Amino acid sequence: MIILGVDPGVALVGYAIIHTKHHHEKPRVADFGCITTSKDSPAGERLLTIHTEMNALIKKHKPQLIAVESLYFFKNLKTAMPVSQAKGVILLSAAKENIPILEFTPLQVKMTVVGYGKAEKKQVQEMTKQLLDLSSFDLKTKDRKKDDAADALGIALCAYLKGSSCIVDKPIP
Amino acid sequence: MIILGVDPGVALVGYAIIHTKHHHEKPRVADFGCITTSKDSPAGERLLTIHTEMNALIKKHKPQLIAVESLYFFKNLKTAMPVSQAKGVILLSAAKENIPILEFTPLQVKMTVVGYGKAEKKQVQEMTKQLLDLSSFDLKTKDRKKDDAADALGIALCAYLKGSSCIVDKPIP
Repeated sequence: MIILGVDPGVALVGYAIIHTKHHHEKPRVADFGCITTSKDSPAGERLLTIHTEMNALIKKHKPQLIAVESLYFFKNLKTAMPVSQAKGVILLSAAKENIPILEFTPLQVKMTVVGYGKAEKKQVQEMTKQLLDLSSFDLKTKDRKKDDAADALGIALCAYLKGSSCIVDKPIP
Repeated sequence: MIILGVDPGVALVGYAIIHTKHHHEKPRVADFGCITTSKDSPAGERLLTIHTEMNALIKKHKPQLIAVESLYFFKNLKTAMPVSQAKGVILLSAAKENIPILEFTPLQVKMTVVGYGKAEKKQVQEMTKQLLDLSSFDLKTKDRKKDDAADALGIALCAYLKGSSCIVDKPIP
């Protein structure tokens, strides 16, 4: 199973591709990092960059499942709306290739990866590193050091741990 | 000038294409109506329908400007997020063809079309009918009777009345 985990955003979209073979083997990380867009570009152009780079990742890695962070809670609507716009073009990339989409809230990721809903971001990142073999990657690159890339690894891992039994792409009410 | 007005939504996306020649002539409506998606379909599929139909409208009518309703205020976040996802794939359609995007809040549409920010929806629709010649259209079709189609006419008209001097596709902060 090839899983693409995505942490949606406007300036930064975290992504992680993991390959899973058997449940007793560590999943192998094929790639992870961030798609970045310039704050000086208009909204449409930034969405186009995100969509184009998502399409390229899908074409290259051929994921069979895309797991995306669900945005249930936001400090303010001004952040929720542009991030949702970005999420829209990410879901579109998946739908175009008919790839099932799985959504997880940050709480679900914490519960699944760490086993504790109030886990700190750092704890999730530590557990992710233990459960995934990242030894072949240079973790000091600008892209891979970002929380968004680590979050995407957590989301992909969460989808793997939950198993494919829970694939629900709920219709929007 | 060919303007495409869009009222974003998930189940219904209102659209209206108007042609403007000289400022002393009534703009001509080329088409208007709604893109509809099924509530039984998964989110990704609905976004794909919206994006595909937006692309078809752009290909057919070749708008030079796309005016979209800006979502500044929402009763709840659960509505704001899916509508923003839909808006994302609409903005993407525009960006792919390098068409400038103009955003207007409902307040701006009311102020521009009716001259009164607290105008009722009905007043905007009445004024829109007076300012645009809709005589060649069957207004009783299911699609054209919907508020979303009327709203899209209002948004296109607002963009026309404001003039192209105000084209600002603000970068997302």
